[in-house]
Amino acid sequence: MTAQTRADLAEVAGVAPIRDAATAGFVFNHTMLRVRDPHASLDFYTRVLGFSLARKVDFEQAKFSLYFLVLAELDDMPDGDEARREWLARQRGVLELTHNHGTEAQVGPVYHDGNSEPRGFGHICVSVPDVRAACARMEAMGVPFQKTLSQGSMRSIAFIKDPDGYWIELIQPTPLAD
Amino acid sequence: MTAQTRADLAEVAGVAPIRDAATAGFVFNHTMLRVRDPHASLDFYTRVLGFSLARKVDFEQAKFSLYFLVLAELDDMPDGDEARREWLARQRGVLELTHNHGTEAQVGPVYHDGNSEPRGFGHICVSVPDVRAACARMEAMGVPFQKTLSQGSMRSIAFIKDPDGYWIELIQPTPLAD
Repeated sequence: MTAQTRADLAEVAGVAPIRDAATAGFVFNHTMLRVRDPHASLDFYTRVLGFSLARKVDFEQAKFSLYFLVLAELDDMPDGDEARREWLARQRGVLELTHNHGTEAQVGPVYHDGNSEPRGFGHICVSVPDVRAACARMEAMGVPFQKTLSQGSMRSIAFIKDPDGYWIELIQPTPLAD
Repeated sequence: MTAQTRADLAEVAGVAPIRDAATAGFVFNHTMLRVRDPHASLDFYTRVLGFSLARKVDFEQAKFSLYFLVLAELDDMPDGDEARREWLARQRGVLELTHNHGTEAQVGPVYHDGNSEPRGFGHICVSVPDVRAACARMEAMGVPFQKTLSQGSMRSIAFIKDPDGYWIELIQPTPLAD
Protein backbone atom coordinates (compact mmCIF):
# COMPACT_ATOMS: atom_id res chain seq x y z
CA MET A 1 0.00 0.00 0.00
CA THR A 2 1.35 3.44 -0.89
CA ALA A 3 2.75 5.08 2.23
CA GLN A 4 0.58 8.12 2.89
CA THR A 5 2.57 9.58 5.77
CA ARG A 6 6.07 9.49 7.27
CA ALA A 7 4.73 7.20 9.99
CA ASP A 8 3.65 4.72 7.28
CA LEU A 9 7.18 4.73 5.84
CA ALA A 10 8.68 3.73 9.18
CA GLU A 11 6.45 0.64 9.19
CA VAL A 12 7.58 -0.72 5.81
CA ALA A 13 9.19 -4.16 6.17
CA GLY A 14 12.98 -3.99 6.15
CA VAL A 15 13.33 -0.32 7.11
CA ALA A 16 15.79 0.13 10.00
CA PRO A 17 14.12 1.68 13.07
CA ILE A 18 16.89 4.25 13.57
CA ARG A 19 19.82 5.49 11.54
CA ASP A 20 23.07 4.02 12.84
CA ALA A 21 25.33 6.84 14.09
CA ALA A 22 28.19 5.09 12.27
CA THR A 23 26.64 6.25 8.96
CA ALA A 24 26.83 9.96 9.87
CA GLY A 25 28.32 11.95 7.01
CA PHE A 26 27.66 9.25 4.40
CA VAL A 27 26.78 10.82 1.03
CA PHE A 28 25.22 9.14 -2.03
CA ASN A 29 27.92 10.60 -4.23
CA HIS A 30 27.69 9.24 -7.76
CA THR A 31 26.35 6.86 -10.37
CA MET A 32 28.71 5.39 -12.96
CA LEU A 33 27.79 4.60 -16.57
CA ARG A 34 30.13 3.36 -19.27
CA VAL A 35 30.02 5.39 -22.50
CA ARG A 36 31.20 4.59 -26.01
CA ASP A 37 32.26 8.08 -27.10
CA PRO A 38 33.04 10.75 -24.49
CA HIS A 39 32.86 13.55 -27.07
CA ALA A 40 29.24 12.66 -27.86
CA SER A 41 28.34 12.08 -24.18
CA LEU A 42 29.94 15.30 -22.94
CA ASP A 43 28.16 17.25 -25.66
CA PHE A 44 24.84 15.66 -24.66
CA TYR A 45 25.15 16.06 -20.90
CA THR A 46 26.55 19.60 -20.98
CA ARG A 47 24.64 21.14 -23.91
CA VAL A 48 21.27 19.37 -23.60
CA LEU A 49 21.02 18.85 -19.83
CA GLY A 50 23.24 21.60 -18.41
CA PHE A 51 25.76 19.42 -16.58
CA SER A 52 29.28 20.76 -16.00
CA LEU A 53 32.44 18.72 -16.32
CA ALA A 54 34.01 18.84 -12.85
CA ARG A 55 36.86 16.36 -13.23
CA LYS A 56 38.63 14.28 -15.87
CA VAL A 57 41.09 11.58 -14.96
CA ASP A 58 43.06 9.48 -17.42
CA PHE A 59 44.53 6.07 -16.74
CA GLU A 60 46.87 5.74 -19.69
CA GLN A 61 48.25 2.29 -18.88
CA ALA A 62 44.86 0.76 -18.12
CA LYS A 63 43.44 2.61 -21.17
CA PHE A 64 40.41 4.28 -19.63
CA SER A 65 39.31 7.76 -18.64
CA LEU A 66 36.79 8.98 -16.09
CA TYR A 67 34.60 12.05 -16.51
CA PHE A 68 32.74 13.45 -13.49
CA LEU A 69 29.78 15.72 -14.20
CA VAL A 70 27.62 17.79 -11.86
CA LEU A 71 24.35 19.59 -12.47
CA ALA A 72 24.93 22.50 -10.14
CA GLU A 73 26.45 25.93 -9.86
CA LEU A 74 30.22 25.65 -9.66
CA ASP A 75 30.94 28.87 -7.78
CA ASP A 76 32.70 27.07 -4.94
CA MET A 77 34.49 24.40 -7.02
CA PRO A 78 38.26 24.61 -6.46
CA ASP A 79 40.70 24.99 -9.31
CA GLY A 80 43.37 22.32 -8.70
CA ASP A 81 42.77 18.66 -9.45
CA GLU A 82 43.30 17.32 -5.92
CA ALA A 83 41.13 20.00 -4.33
CA ARG A 84 38.42 19.28 -6.91
CA ARG A 85 38.64 15.56 -6.15
CA GLU A 86 37.89 16.25 -2.49
CA TRP A 87 35.16 18.78 -3.29
CA LEU A 88 33.54 16.36 -5.72
CA ALA A 89 33.57 13.50 -3.21
CA ARG A 90 31.40 15.57 -0.86
CA GLN A 91 28.71 16.28 -3.48
CA ARG A 92 25.42 14.48 -3.99
CA GLY A 93 24.24 13.60 -7.48
CA VAL A 94 27.46 13.30 -9.44
CA LEU A 95 27.44 11.45 -12.76
CA GLU A 96 30.60 9.47 -13.57
CA LEU A 97 31.14 8.44 -17.19
CA THR A 98 33.75 5.77 -17.89
CA HIS A 99 35.39 5.64 -21.31
CA ASN A 100 37.34 2.55 -22.20
CA HIS A 101 39.73 3.83 -24.86
CA GLY A 102 38.90 2.64 -28.36
CA THR A 103 35.18 2.05 -28.00
CA GLU A 104 34.51 5.31 -29.83
CA ALA A 105 35.80 3.63 -33.00
CA GLN A 106 33.34 0.74 -32.74
CA VAL A 107 30.29 0.75 -34.98
CA GLY A 108 26.87 0.59 -33.36
CA PRO A 109 25.91 0.30 -29.69
CA VAL A 110 28.64 -0.84 -27.31
CA TYR A 111 26.78 -0.78 -23.99
CA HIS A 112 23.54 -2.23 -22.63
CA ASP A 113 20.90 0.16 -21.27
CA GLY A 114 19.57 -2.33 -18.71
CA ASN A 115 15.96 -2.18 -19.91
CA SER A 116 15.90 -5.34 -22.04
CA GLU A 117 17.14 -8.72 -20.86
CA PRO A 118 19.25 -9.01 -18.84
CA ARG A 119 17.60 -6.17 -16.93
CA GLY A 120 18.96 -4.36 -13.88
CA PHE A 121 19.76 -0.64 -13.90
CA GLY A 122 16.78 1.27 -15.26
CA HIS A 123 17.43 4.97 -15.73
CA ILE A 124 18.67 8.21 -14.30
CA CYS A 125 16.28 11.13 -13.79
CA VAL A 126 16.61 14.87 -14.21
CA SER A 127 14.01 17.05 -12.51
CA VAL A 128 13.16 20.26 -14.39
CA PRO A 129 11.04 23.29 -13.48
CA ASP A 130 8.81 22.94 -16.58
CA VAL A 131 8.78 19.50 -18.17
CA ARG A 132 6.68 20.58 -21.19
CA ALA A 133 9.12 23.37 -22.02
CA ALA A 134 12.07 21.05 -21.48
CA CYS A 135 10.61 18.40 -23.79
CA ALA A 136 9.76 20.96 -26.49
CA ARG A 137 13.35 22.27 -26.38
CA MET A 138 14.82 18.76 -26.57
CA GLU A 139 12.52 17.74 -29.43
CA ALA A 140 13.67 20.85 -31.30
CA MET A 141 17.28 19.81 -30.62
CA GLY A 142 16.64 16.38 -32.11
CA VAL A 143 17.07 14.44 -28.87
CA PRO A 144 15.62 10.91 -29.20
CA PHE A 145 12.70 10.08 -26.91
CA GLN A 146 11.94 6.71 -25.39
CA LYS A 147 8.57 8.09 -24.28
CA THR A 148 7.10 11.53 -24.92
CA LEU A 149 4.72 13.18 -22.45
CA SER A 150 1.74 12.24 -24.62
CA GLN A 151 2.64 8.55 -24.95
CA GLY A 152 1.42 5.94 -22.48
CA SER A 153 -0.64 6.45 -19.36
CA MET A 154 1.81 8.56 -17.35
CA ARG A 155 1.38 11.97 -18.95
CA SER A 156 3.57 13.92 -16.54
CA ILE A 157 6.86 12.16 -17.28
CA ALA A 158 9.00 11.64 -20.36
CA PHE A 159 12.08 9.59 -21.12
CA ILE A 160 14.86 10.71 -23.43
CA LYS A 161 17.87 8.64 -24.50
CA ASP A 162 21.51 9.60 -24.18
CA PRO A 163 24.05 8.78 -26.95
CA ASP A 164 24.52 5.23 -25.59
CA GLY A 165 20.78 4.65 -25.31
CA TYR A 166 20.61 5.02 -21.51
CA TRP A 167 17.17 6.26 -20.45
CA ILE A 168 16.84 9.63 -18.72
CA GLU A 169 13.52 10.34 -17.07
CA LEU A 170 12.30 13.95 -17.05
CA ILE A 171 9.95 15.04 -14.27
CA GLN A 172 8.80 18.30 -12.73
CA PRO A 173 8.19 18.71 -9.00
CA THR A 174 4.90 20.57 -9.26
CA PRO A 175 1.70 19.13 -10.82
CA LEU A 176 1.31 19.88 -14.54
CA ALA A 177 -1.33 22.47 -15.36
CA ASP A 178 -4.21 21.11 -17.51
CA MET B 1 45.42 14.02 -20.29
CA THR B 2 44.05 14.49 -16.77
CA ALA B 3 42.60 17.98 -16.47
CA GLN B 4 44.73 19.80 -13.89
CA THR B 5 42.67 22.98 -13.67
CA ARG B 6 39.17 24.28 -14.37
CA ALA B 7 40.52 25.93 -17.51
CA ASP B 8 41.66 22.49 -18.75
CA LEU B 9 38.14 21.11 -18.23
CA ALA B 10 36.63 23.79 -20.44
CA GLU B 11 38.90 22.64 -23.28
CA VAL B 12 37.81 18.99 -23.25
CA ALA B 13 36.23 17.98 -26.58
CA GLY B 14 32.45 17.98 -26.44
CA VAL B 15 32.04 20.27 -23.43
CA ALA B 16 29.56 23.07 -24.15
CA PRO B 17 31.17 26.54 -23.87
CA ILE B 18 28.37 27.95 -21.71
CA ARG B 19 25.44 26.48 -19.81
CA ASP B 20 22.21 27.09 -21.71
CA ALA B 21 19.90 29.29 -19.59
CA ALA B 22 17.07 26.89 -20.54
CA THR B 23 18.63 24.31 -18.19
CA ALA B 24 18.37 26.57 -15.11
CA GLY B 25 16.89 24.67 -12.20
CA PHE B 26 17.62 21.24 -13.68
CA VAL B 27 18.50 18.73 -10.93
CA PHE B 28 20.11 15.29 -11.30
CA ASN B 29 17.41 13.76 -9.14
CA HIS B 30 17.69 9.99 -9.03
CA THR B 31 19.09 6.69 -10.22
CA MET B 32 16.77 3.70 -10.60
CA LEU B 33 17.74 0.08 -9.96
CA ARG B 34 15.43 -2.94 -10.08
CA VAL B 35 15.56 -5.14 -6.98
CA ARG B 36 14.41 -8.69 -6.38
CA ASP B 37 13.30 -8.39 -2.74
CA PRO B 38 12.47 -4.96 -1.28
CA HIS B 39 12.64 -6.26 2.28
CA ALA B 40 16.28 -7.27 1.80
CA SER B 41 17.16 -4.11 -0.13
CA LEU B 42 15.50 -1.74 2.36
CA ASP B 43 17.28 -3.48 5.21
CA PHE B 44 20.60 -3.13 3.39
CA TYR B 45 20.25 0.50 2.31
CA THR B 46 18.81 1.77 5.61
CA ARG B 47 20.73 -0.34 8.16
CA VAL B 48 24.12 -0.68 6.44
CA LEU B 49 24.34 2.61 4.52
CA GLY B 50 22.07 4.95 6.50
CA PHE B 51 19.56 5.77 3.75
CA SER B 52 16.03 6.77 4.75
CA LEU B 53 12.89 5.65 2.95
CA ALA B 54 11.29 8.87 1.73
CA ARG B 55 8.46 7.53 -0.46
CA LYS B 56 6.76 4.26 -1.38
CA VAL B 57 4.32 4.04 -4.25
CA ASP B 58 2.42 0.93 -5.27
CA PHE B 59 1.00 0.25 -8.69
CA GLU B 60 -1.32 -2.64 -7.91
CA GLN B 61 -2.66 -3.22 -11.41
CA ALA B 62 0.74 -3.07 -13.07
CA LYS B 63 2.18 -5.15 -10.20
CA PHE B 64 5.15 -3.05 -9.21
CA SER B 65 6.19 -0.79 -6.34
CA LEU B 66 8.68 2.07 -6.17
CA TYR B 67 10.84 2.88 -3.15
CA PHE B 68 12.64 6.24 -3.01
CA LEU B 69 15.57 6.51 -0.61
CA VAL B 70 17.68 9.47 0.44
CA LEU B 71 20.93 9.64 2.35
CA ALA B 72 20.30 12.92 4.16
CA GLU B 73 18.72 14.45 7.21
CA LEU B 74 14.96 14.49 6.82
CA ASP B 75 14.17 17.45 9.08
CA ASP B 76 12.42 19.35 6.32
CA MET B 77 10.68 16.38 4.62
CA PRO B 78 6.90 16.93 4.56
CA ASP B 79 4.47 14.40 5.97
CA GLY B 80 1.85 13.90 3.25
CA ASP B 81 2.52 11.81 0.15
CA GLU B 82 1.97 14.55 -2.45
CA ALA B 83 4.06 17.09 -0.55
CA ARG B 84 6.80 14.46 -0.19
CA ARG B 85 6.64 13.75 -3.92
CA GLU B 86 7.35 17.41 -4.67
CA TRP B 87 10.05 17.67 -1.99
CA LEU B 88 11.73 14.53 -3.29
CA ALA B 89 11.71 15.75 -6.90
CA ARG B 90 13.85 18.74 -5.85
CA GLN B 91 16.53 16.62 -4.17
CA ARG B 92 19.86 15.51 -5.60
CA GLY B 93 21.08 11.97 -5.08
CA VAL B 94 17.87 10.00 -4.64
CA LEU B 95 17.96 6.22 -5.08
CA GLU B 96 14.84 4.67 -6.63
CA LEU B 97 14.35 0.93 -6.20
CA THR B 98 11.78 -0.78 -8.42
CA HIS B 99 10.18 -4.02 -7.23
CA ASN B 100 8.27 -6.06 -9.78
CA HIS B 101 5.89 -8.05 -7.60
CA GLY B 102 6.75 -11.72 -7.36
CA THR B 103 10.49 -11.56 -8.01
CA GLU B 104 11.12 -11.99 -4.28
CA ALA B 105 9.89 -15.58 -4.62
CA GLN B 106 12.38 -16.42 -7.37
CA VAL B 107 15.45 -18.42 -6.47
CA GLY B 108 18.87 -16.95 -7.22
CA PRO B 109 19.79 -13.67 -8.88
CA VAL B 110 17.06 -11.93 -10.87
CA TYR B 111 18.89 -8.83 -12.08
CA HIS B 112 22.12 -8.08 -13.91
CA ASP B 113 24.72 -5.86 -12.19
CA GLY B 114 26.08 -4.43 -15.45
CA ASN B 115 29.69 -5.45 -14.83
CA SER B 116 29.81 -8.61 -16.93
CA GLU B 117 28.61 -8.84 -20.52
CA PRO B 118 26.48 -7.10 -21.58
CA ARG B 119 28.07 -4.23 -19.66
CA GLY B 120 26.67 -0.74 -19.18
CA PHE B 121 25.81 0.66 -15.75
CA GLY B 122 28.77 0.14 -13.42
CA HIS B 123 28.07 1.13 -9.83
CA ILE B 124 26.79 3.67 -7.39
CA CYS B 125 29.13 5.29 -4.87
CA VAL B 126 28.75 6.34 -1.26
CA SER B 127 31.30 8.78 0.12
CA VAL B 128 32.12 8.29 3.81
CA PRO B 129 34.21 10.32 6.28
CA ASP B 130 36.47 7.35 7.16
CA VAL B 131 36.57 4.57 4.59
CA ARG B 132 38.68 2.24 6.76
CA ALA B 133 36.22 2.49 9.65
CA ALA B 134 33.28 2.06 7.27
CA CYS B 135 34.81 -1.07 5.71
CA ALA B 136 35.64 -2.56 9.12
CA ARG B 137 32.04 -2.02 10.26
CA MET B 138 30.61 -3.56 7.08
CA GLU B 139 32.95 -6.55 7.24
CA ALA B 140 31.78 -7.11 10.82
CA MET B 141 28.17 -6.93 9.58
CA GLY B 142 28.88 -9.62 6.98
CA VAL B 143 28.45 -7.36 3.94
CA PRO B 144 29.94 -8.99 0.83
CA PHE B 145 32.86 -7.16 -0.79
CA GLN B 146 33.64 -7.03 -4.49
CA LYS B 147 36.99 -5.44 -3.61
CA THR B 148 38.41 -4.67 -0.18
CA LEU B 149 40.75 -1.75 0.44
CA SER B 150 43.75 -4.06 0.42
CA GLN B 151 42.91 -5.80 -2.87
CA GLY B 152 44.14 -4.49 -6.22
CA SER B 153 46.16 -1.39 -6.93
CA MET B 154 43.67 1.24 -5.76
CA ARG B 155 44.09 1.06 -1.99
CA SER B 156 41.83 4.01 -1.14
CA ILE B 157 38.57 2.61 -2.50
CA ALA B 158 36.47 -0.47 -1.83
CA PHE B 159 33.42 -2.01 -3.46
CA ILE B 160 30.66 -3.75 -1.57
CA LYS B 161 27.68 -5.56 -3.10
CA ASP B 162 24.02 -4.95 -2.36
CA PRO B 163 21.53 -7.85 -2.08
CA ASP B 164 21.09 -7.96 -5.89
CA GLY B 165 24.82 -7.88 -6.49
CA TYR B 166 24.97 -4.22 -7.60
CA TRP B 167 28.35 -2.73 -6.83
CA ILE B 168 28.63 0.16 -4.38
CA GLU B 169 31.93 2.00 -4.31
CA LEU B 170 33.11 3.43 -0.99
CA ILE B 171 35.42 6.44 -1.02
CA GLN B 172 36.50 9.13 1.41
CA PRO B 173 37.07 12.74 0.38
CA THR B 174 40.35 13.26 2.22
CA PRO B 175 43.56 11.31 1.51
CA LEU B 176 43.99 8.17 3.62
CA ALA B 177 46.61 8.43 6.34
CA ASP B 178 49.52 5.99 5.92
